[in-house]
Amino acid sequence: MTERLNVAVVGAGYWGPNLARNFAASSEWDLAVICDLDIERAQQVSDRVGGVPVSASLDEVLADPAIDAVAIATPARTHHSVVMAALAAGKHVTVEKPLADTVERGHEMVETARAEGLVLMADHTYCYTPAVLKIRELIAAGDLGDILFIDSVRINLGLIQPDVDVFWDLAPHDLSIIDFVLPGGIDSATVSAHGADPLRTGKSCIGYLAMPLAGGAMAHVHVNWLSPTKIRQMVIGGTKRTLVWDDLNPQQRLSVYDRGVDLAEQSKATTTDARAANISYRLGDTWAPALPEKEALSNMTAEFASAIRDRREARTDGASGLRVLSILEAAKGSLGRDGAPYPVDTTHGTDRT
Amino acid sequence: MTERLNVAVVGAGYWGPNLARNFAASSEWDLAVICDLDIERAQQVSDRVGGVPVSASLDEVLADPAIDAVAIATPARTHHSVVMAALAAGKHVTVEKPLADTVERGHEMVETARAEGLVLMADHTYCYTPAVLKIRELIAAGDLGDILFIDSVRINLGLIQPDVDVFWDLAPHDLSIIDFVLPGGIDSATVSAHGADPLRTGKSCIGYLAMPLAGGAMAHVHVNWLSPTKIRQMVIGGTKRTLVWDDLNPQQRLSVYDRGVDLAEQSKATTTDARAANISYRLGDTWAPALPEKEALSNMTAEFASAIRDRREARTDGASGLRVLSILEAAKGSLGRDGAPYPVDTTHGTDRT
Amino acid sequence: MTERLNVAVVGAGYWGPNLARNFAASSEWDLAVICDLDIERAQQVSDRVGGVPVSASLDEVLADPAIDAVAIATPARTHHSVVMAALAAGKHVTVEKPLADTVERGHEMVETARAEGLVLMADHTYCYTPAVLKIRELIAAGDLGDILFIDSVRINLGLIQPDVDVFWDLAPHDLSIIDFVLPGGIDSATVSAHGADPLRTGKSCIGYLAMPLAGGAMAHVHVNWLSPTKIRQMVIGGTKRTLVWDDLNPQQRLSVYDRGVDLAEQSKATTTDARAANISYRLGDTWAPALPEKEALSNMTAEFASAIRDRREARTDGASGLRVLSILEAAKGSLGRDGAPYPVDTTHGTDRT
Amino acid sequence: MTERLNVAVVGAGYWGPNLARNFAASSEWDLAVICDLDIERAQQVSDRVGGVPVSASLDEVLADPAIDAVAIATPARTHHSVVMAALAAGKHVTVEKPLADTVERGHEMVETARAEGLVLMADHTYCYTPAVLKIRELIAAGDLGDILFIDSVRINLGLIQPDVDVFWDLAPHDLSIIDFVLPGGIDSATVSAHGADPLRTGKSCIGYLAMPLAGGAMAHVHVNWLSPTKIRQMVIGGTKRTLVWDDLNPQQRLSVYDRGVDLAEQSKATTTDARAANISYRLGDTWAPALPEKEALSNMTAEFASAIRDRREARTDGASGLRVLSILEAAKGSLGRDGAPYPVDTTHGTDRT
Repeated sequence: MTERLNVAVVGAGYWGPNLARNFAASSEWDLAVICDLDIERAQQVSDRVGGVPVSASLDEVLADPAIDAVAIATPARTHHSVVMAALAAGKHVTVEKPLADTVERGHEMVETARAEGLVLMADHTYCYTPAVLKIRELIAAGDLGDILFIDSVRINLGLIQPDVDVFWDLAPHDLSIIDFVLPGGIDSATVSAHGADPLRTGKSCIGYLAMPLAGGAMAHVHVNWLSPTKIRQMVIGGTKRTLVWDDLNPQQRLSVYDRGVDLAEQSKATTTDARAANISYRLGDTWAPALPEKEALSNMTAEFASAIRDRREARTDGASGLRVLSILEAAKGSLGRDGAPYPVDTTHGTDRT
Repeated sequence: MTERLNVAVVGAGYWGPNLARNFAASSEWDLAVICDLDIERAQQVSDRVGGVPVSASLDEVLADPAIDAVAIATPARTHHSVVMAALAAGKHVTVEKPLADTVERGHEMVETARAEGLVLMADHTYCYTPAVLKIRELIAAGDLGDILFIDSVRINLGLIQPDVDVFWDLAPHDLSIIDFVLPGGIDSATVSAHGADPLRTGKSCIGYLAMPLAGGAMAHVHVNWLSPTKIRQMVIGGTKRTLVWDDLNPQQRLSVYDRGVDLAEQSKATTTDARAANISYRLGDTWAPALPEKEALSNMTAEFASAIRDRREARTDGASGLRVLSILEAAKGSLGRDGAPYPVDTTHGTDRT
Repeated sequence: MTERLNVAVVGAGYWGPNLARNFAASSEWDLAVICDLDIERAQQVSDRVGGVPVSASLDEVLADPAIDAVAIATPARTHHSVVMAALAAGKHVTVEKPLADTVERGHEMVETARAEGLVLMADHTYCYTPAVLKIRELIAAGDLGDILFIDSVRINLGLIQPDVDVFWDLAPHDLSIIDFVLPGGIDSATVSAHGADPLRTGKSCIGYLAMPLAGGAMAHVHVNWLSPTKIRQMVIGGTKRTLVWDDLNPQQRLSVYDRGVDLAEQSKATTTDARAANISYRLGDTWAPALPEKEALSNMTAEFASAIRDRREARTDGASGLRVLSILEAAKGSLGRDGAPYPVDTTHGTDRT
Repeated sequence: MTERLNVAVVGAGYWGPNLARNFAASSEWDLAVICDLDIERAQQVSDRVGGVPVSASLDEVLADPAIDAVAIATPARTHHSVVMAALAAGKHVTVEKPLADTVERGHEMVETARAEGLVLMADHTYCYTPAVLKIRELIAAGDLGDILFIDSVRINLGLIQPDVDVFWDLAPHDLSIIDFVLPGGIDSATVSAHGADPLRTGKSCIGYLAMPLAGGAMAHVHVNWLSPTKIRQMVIGGTKRTLVWDDLNPQQRLSVYDRGVDLAEQSKATTTDARAANISYRLGDTWAPALPEKEALSNMTAEFASAIRDRREARTDGASGLRVLSILEAAKGSLGRDGAPYPVDTTHGTDRT
C-alpha cells in the first residue's frame, strides 16, 4: 500500500460534511483539516468524523506543506479565488460544481493547473454513481450504437435558491452526466434555453435546455423547482439500443431496451419513399444490469487519489467542468435572447486531451 | 326524446371505424352512410357495425338532404376541400385533427361555417376523455389557482409517418388538450420548436415545443417517436395546487397535489431579498378524483349533437382547431430558424367568443 | 392447407362472444353455428361476427354430422351434461373452466373422452397468453432451476358472484396457470384454504390457498373481491433464477431475476451450522423477455385444432382441468375444517400421460 | 422543561447504535452509558454519538441509581433475564422485539413490571413511523369503518438467519403493526401457519399466517426471504374505506380508497338472493394524506419518556409485545400440525387495560 495522501476540506456548509465523511472513510486519504471561516461549523463537522483539526484560515491551511490536496465546497462565486490560491500553493484540487462563475475564470483555473502539473478535478459527484459509471461503460463499448438523443428530467419541489436560478442549481448535474457518458464529452455548438418565473421570484424556476449534438442528435434537459412529484430520469437513445435511467427506482435503475427503429443501410442516400420502405422496428428484450452498491463520493475520492498518483487528468477533469460551465453561460445568453440559440464558447477548454 | 340526427362518416381508414362504431352506438345519432373512395374498405367498416349503406361518392353523400352532419377522417391535406364541400351542402361538420394543413385554409373553413350558421367541430378526441374533462372542470373552478406551467410528455416507439413529422403527428393531442383546459384557450404569442432527425428520415422524430403563456407562465411539449418506453404525462402547476395526469396509470390517472411554493402576497412589489424571506412551502395531501369510465368518442358524438341542437359552438370548435393549427405552423417557422421563437399567427381565429 | 374444422359455440353469455369472435377469425376453423337457449342472445353474437347460423337446440347442433367440435361456455353446473352429450355425439370438446362442478363428474367426462378417442380440452385461456407460454418454456428449459415457491395474487374490487365464492370464481385462473407451467402439472397432496366473509354475503370474498409441492416447495394463491387496487402478480422462485409476472404492467410483464440464495451442494447433508457457512447470495442482472402480442384465445383455438388433427391431448387437457377441480374441491373440504389441510383426490385424473 | 431522564443502552450490535443515536439526539433523554459485553463494540457506538461512557457490566449499569431507564437490544433469548434484572433494579425498560422467547417468560416480565409500577415497553419501532401512526388514527376515528380484512406482505431477498425462521424474523413487524392499529389490539383466537423450506436450510424461509379476526374478518401475513423483489405492503379493508400502505413508495405511502362493496343494511337477516339484490359498489376518490418526515425511533424515545413521566402504559406496552409473542408461539404450534389452526394462548397477557 502506498502512503496516504493528506487532504483539507474547505467549506463546511451543505456539501462539505459529505466530503469530510468520505475522505475520512477512505483508505487512500487522511483527512488533515477542515477549514471554514465559521470555525464552529467546522468543528461540528469534525466532531462527526471522529475529531480532526479545524482551521478558520485558508492561508494557514495552504501554507502547510503536509497537505497534498484540497477539496473545495465553498459558494460558486468564491471558487476562482480559492482554487487559484490552492494551485499557487502547489495543491491538487477538487472543486464542487459549477467550476466557476464565468467561463473566463474557469479557463484560467484549468490553464493554471495544467501549467503547474496539478490535478484540477470537477466534483461532478453523479458521474461516480454506479449507474452513471455503467452508462459510460455501455456507451463506450458500443452497446447503444451511435447516440441519437438524450432526454434528461430532474424535477422536484425544490428550494428556491436565493442566488442562482434553476439552471445553475440543477442543470449542472444533467450536463456533467451527459458530458461524462458521451465519448469526447458534450459538443453542442449552441444552446437554446427557455425559462419561466411565474411566481415572480426574480429568476427562472422552470427551465428547458435544447442542445443539438453532432450528427443530427439532440440533448435536452428539463429542470424544475415547482413540480410536486420528483422525477429523475434520463433516456439515452442509440442506433442499437436505448437506455432508461430512473434514479428513483432502486429496484431497477437502469433498463436497456433492445427496441428501436432501423433504417436499412443502403437507403441512406436515396429518396424519402425508398427510405420509408426500409424502416423496420425492433421489439426485443429488456435488460437491467445489476449495479454495485457503492457511494458515489467514495468513488470520487478514489479517482482523485488515483489521478494524483498516476499524474493524469481525473475522469471529471477541469476541462469537463469548463464544458459544463460554457453551456450554462450560453444558456444565460439564450435566455437573454428569448430562447434563440446561443453559441457555446468553445475557444476555452474544449481541448479534450 | 328528440329525433335522431343523421351522420355520414367520410374516410374509412385508421380513425373512421372508431367514428362509425361510436355514432352507431349513440342514441343521438343514426349512422346513415360510410363513405370512402375505396368502397371495399367502407364495406368492411360497415360489416362491423351491423351493416349500413356505403358509398364511394362524396358528392352523392353530400347531396342527400337526409344527412344532417358529416364526420371527416380523411388525410389532413384533404380536410379543406372536403369540409368546404360539406359546408356548402349545408352540413354540420366534425373533422379530425389537424383542422387543415395551413392556418389560412383553416381560417376560411371557420369563417364559412360561421357565416352559414353551421357547426364546425374539431374532433379533439382527447378533450372528451373523463380525465381531461375533469382537468378542465378543476381549473375552471379555480382549484389549481393561476396556472404557472404545463409540461406535457408524449413519447413512445412510434411509427415514423411518411407524410408528417412528429410535431404534426403527436403534438396536436397535447396542444388541443392545453387549449381545452386553459380558460380562454392557449394564448402563446410565440413558439420555439426544437427538432431532431438523427436517423436521417427527412423529418423530425423528436420534438420539443416551448410556449410562453400570459403572466410569465410556460407551456412545454415533448413528443418523440424513438422512445422505447411509453410515457403520456402532463403536469399542470398552479398557484394553489398542482395536477399530474398519468394517462397510462388506469388506477390513478389524475393526482391533485396540495403542494407548492407560496409567496406572501405583500411581498410582490418589494425586493428580491424581502421576497425570499416570504417564500414558504406547502406539503399537503394528495387527492385522486374518481373518473367515470366513458369512451371519449361517445362524449364527442354527444357534444356534436348537442351543439347542433342548441345552435352553439362545440366545446372544441373550429376556433380551437385553428389555434392548434396556428401553433403547429409557428413551430414549423421556428424550426426553420433553428429554434428561435416564432410568432403565432393571431390574426386568424383568436376570436374566442 | 388442410381443410377447416367446423365448430359450434354453445352458450352466448359472457364468454361465448369471445369464443365466437376468435373461431370466426381463425384460419383453422369455420364457425358453423352459435347455440343458446336464448336465441336472441345467440343472434346478437352472430351479428357481431358477420352473421352465422344460430340455434336454440343443442340436440339439433349435435346431430349435425358436419360439426367437428363444440366450444362450451355455459354455466359450470351444466358442463357435465352438455359435454357428455357432445362426446356421445362424437364431437371434440373444449369447455370453459371449471371443467365440471364435482371431481367425480369431471372424471367421468375425461374417461369418456379417452374411451372415445376424442379431444377434451379445458379452456384455461390464461395458459395461452404469451406471458404464460413463455413462463412454461423457461421452466421447461431449466432456466429457473428447481421450483422453490409460487406465490400468486389476483385481487380486485370484483363482482360478488351470486352462485360461487371467490375461490371458484378466481382461483381456477391461478391454479390452471400453475398446473400449466409446472412440469407434470400441479401435484399438491393437500390444500389448506382460509376464507373470510366479513360482509356476511354467505360466501368467501377473500381467500388464501396454501399447497405444499414436491421437494419442500410451496404454492400459494391469494384471491380477493374486496381490494380497491387491482393486483395480478405471480412470483415463481427457482434455485437458479426467480421470475415475476406482473400482468398489469404491459411495458414489462415478465422479469427474470438472476438473484437468489445459493447453498453449496456438499453441505446438503450436514449440520445447520455448516450449512449457514455455505449460503451465498447472487445479485445478478434482470432480464425482461419480449413477448409477442397475440390474443390468448387465438392461441387456444389453434391448439384445439392442432390437438384434433394430430390426435393428441391438448396442452390444457381434461386431466389438467381435473387437477384444478380436485384442488378446488379439496379447498372446499379444508374450509369446512377451518383451514386444516385437506387431501387432494388423486384417485381421479392424476394419470398425466 | 422538565429534567432529562437518564437511559442506558444495553447491546451494541445491529440495533443498539440506532437506539444510542436517537436517545443522544433527544431533548428528553441523556444517554448515560452504552453497555455491551464486547467493550470495543460499545466504544465504537459511543464514538459515533460524541463519546459517552461505556461499560461491559450490566450489573454495574443497573446498580447506578442515576439511571432511570434501560433500552435493551440484546439477542431475544436473553431478553427475559436482562429485563427481569432491570426491573428488579427499579428501571423502566424498552426492549426490542420479540418481547421474549416464550409466552410464559414474557408474561412474567409483564406481570413483574405491573407489580413494580414500572414501564415495560415493546420497541415495536414500525408502530412509530408517521404512516402507522396515521393508520391508527384513521381507524380510531372510524374513517375506515369496521375492519374487514388486513393483508400484509413483507418479502425481500433477505439474510437467512442462523437462529430464527422467517416467521420470527419478519412477522413481528406485521403483527405488532396490526396489533397497534386495531382498536383493542389483535384478537385472533387461532393461527394457521404455512411454511416452506425448499432450500433445506432447516427452517422456514417462506411463511404465511392466516388469523381470523372478530366478526368474520381476517388478517393474513406473507413473509419471505427468497423473493428477488422487495415488497412491503399492507391493505386494510373496511366497511367505509380501504387503505393501502406501500412503504416503498415515498411519494405516496398511504392511499385511502373510497371504494368498496356496500350491502344494504336491511338485508342482513334475509336470504342470499335478497342480499345479492342489495349489493352495490362505490368507486369514489382516492386520498393520500401528507405525512410528516419524522424518524420512528425519535417518536419511540419520546413515547418512552412520556409514559414514564405520566406513569402510564406505553402505546406499545408489554401486553402488546405479549400478544405478538402469543401469535408467534401459536404459529409454531400450527407449523407442527401441518398448518392446522392452533389456538392462541390468551390466558396470558390479553388483559388490555
